[in-house]
Amino acid sequence: MQIRDAKPADLPVIAPIFREIVADGETYAYPEDLTDAQIAAAWMEPPPARCIVAYAADGTILGTAKAGPNRPGRGDHIATASFMVSPTAQGQGVGRALAEEVLRWATDQGYAAMQFNAVVETNMGAVALWEQLGFRILTTVPGTFRSRHHGPVGLHVMFRELG
Amino acid sequence: MQIRDAKPADLPVIAPIFREIVADGETYAYPEDLTDAQIAAAWMEPPPARCIVAYAADGTILGTAKAGPNRPGRGDHIATASFMVSPTAQGQGVGRALAEEVLRWATDQGYAAMQFNAVVETNMGAVALWEQLGFRILTTVPGTFRSRHHGPVGLHVMFRELG
Repeated sequence: MQIRDAKPADLPVIAPIFREIVADGETYAYPEDLTDAQIAAAWMEPPPARCIVAYAADGTILGTAKAGPNRPGRGDHIATASFMVSPTAQGQGVGRALAEEVLRWATDQGYAAMQFNAVVETNMGAVALWEQLGFRILTTVPGTFRSRHHGPVGLHVMFRELG
Repeated sequence: MQIRDAKPADLPVIAPIFREIVADGETYAYPEDLTDAQIAAAWMEPPPARCIVAYAADGTILGTAKAGPNRPGRGDHIATASFMVSPTAQGQGVGRALAEEVLRWATDQGYAAMQFNAVVETNMGAVALWEQLGFRILTTVPGTFRSRHHGPVGLHVMFRELG
């Protein structure tokens, strides 16, 4: 598995992964009816943000991540990031590889910390991975995500210092 | 003091209030160089969000608020809101009047709760008002706002149920 910056030509591969994960209804509060252009705007953000993909030896895209400032202006020293692993590539360490690259990049860019604003509490694999990578749960905002299978569940705010 | 929906013709009054409060550097992480059009996009949001103004008997705008879903999709049952009181109208209860109207409206719209994502911890007046209005501090994300006068300070996540 290798990682590179996403390019506009990746949109036809990224958009179906995005839609399938959003439609699954367990991890992201994006609308379900976004067009390709809206997905590009929401996910493939321009600098100072960055969008990357993880790909297999044959070039198949396995997952994608975006990272950048969590807020503009007086909050732009704190990074945030989001991750999507293709449903056909789960359990292969794709999320971890993307996260390690995002943490390396954010540290290199000089961000002081990374904040996740909305980690679904029932997304146990992600929560465990973020904790392994040094994030801690600051709070769980109750009932703020309507999980397809679990109903209303909490969203964790997770945080770790960088550098 | 009365409250009404904001209209496009209010932008020439709202924009200077917005810029002065952002430039003060104590309460909001917006960029300081936004055009009027960018301020309109950031503050005067279309439905399902709502933007209101508080005005005096002579029509002078004293402050403004916006409210709407905190997240799209599976998070759109939780509201958020933001408030700006004109620096020339502080201490007159404008913020409280705007907040009471926003809470009434959000309850009427069926939101289950209201979340503030980033209340600057040194903004004592606002924190005290939100606590009086039933919000509690869920966590304070450390050092995530660069206050002009205080340096890096925390941002509170505040929350209250509605209805």
